[in-house]
Amino acid sequence: MIDQQLKDVIRDVSDFPKPGIVFKDITPILKNTQLCDAILEGFLDRLQPDAIDVVAGIESRGFLFGLSLAQRLGKPFVPIRKQGKLPYRTVAQSYALEYGEAIVEIHEDAFEPGARVLVHDDLLATGGTVIATSKLIEKLGGTIAGYAFIISLDFLAGKEKLADYSQQVVSLVDY
Amino acid sequence: MIDQQLKDVIRDVSDFPKPGIVFKDITPILKNTQLCDAILEGFLDRLQPDAIDVVAGIESRGFLFGLSLAQRLGKPFVPIRKQGKLPYRTVAQSYALEYGEAIVEIHEDAFEPGARVLVHDDLLATGGTVIATSKLIEKLGGTIAGYAFIISLDFLAGKEKLADYSQQVVSLVDY
Repeated sequence: MIDQQLKDVIRDVSDFPKPGIVFKDITPILKNTQLCDAILEGFLDRLQPDAIDVVAGIESRGFLFGLSLAQRLGKPFVPIRKQGKLPYRTVAQSYALEYGEAIVEIHEDAFEPGARVLVHDDLLATGGTVIATSKLIEKLGGTIAGYAFIISLDFLAGKEKLADYSQQVVSLVDY
Repeated sequence: MIDQQLKDVIRDVSDFPKPGIVFKDITPILKNTQLCDAILEGFLDRLQPDAIDVVAGIESRGFLFGLSLAQRLGKPFVPIRKQGKLPYRTVAQSYALEYGEAIVEIHEDAFEPGARVLVHDDLLATGGTVIATSKLIEKLGGTIAGYAFIISLDFLAGKEKLADYSQQVVSLVDY
């Protein structure tokens, strides 16, 4: 049911960020306070708080629901940011883009070794950023408790790639 | 009291993002679920929900508490983003940096004309981004209901500049 409610408001924007891509615009969701609440409740229904020590959210859109999700789970929140944005000592991981590469970083004191980390972003596409984030978490001695996405673009097969890290991949609406 | 609690955990990072700057690192706050809750309660204590129609949060760190704040106020959330990040039709505003300029954008359908918009970011420094955001809101026919910051660097006099837009400037901890 939340699946259809979300599909009703997510806006397709053609040719963004470049020609041929149909972008899923979540900003209409953010205007709808009941739907924002339903997203958080949807995550809580599908996750096991006892199996999660920390919530990591990926910059920028993963910050929107990430902190709220962590708060509702009663867990610390850790930001994953683009290179050069985190002020303290960091660990970095590069990943391939269509042309070139990008780098994500985490603070080296983000969590204690052994922590079970839930990774959150708004949307799972090919999984490049999410896998780089997973590698960061492992570099710090953490394990992946699971993944929580609002949207999964299943035709891009991101979930298959994440299976190496965790069987717990939650998405509220799939395309 | 929340003032001292925040000062106890905010981390000073010297020479970030460049030599001579002491950066206020809020990531230790994000690990503390009780303190995150106290921040949201601190905002609610100091704001008047009846005078606010929309909450606007400034990318990226303004996304962290921005959506939670909007949810607690029961108001829609609107993201203010860096140039080229919002997928739909936008209105843009440039502002001066020490060297060069930057541009922030808002979706042209972010709110209805006449809306009273609360602007949120994690930290108020010189106010450049916040004033550009205020101009964006006015371009769309909105008014500034007020400002909510976790931290204000009062020695940079940002609050004085914001007085042209609203007398309601809330900050939980001042330096």
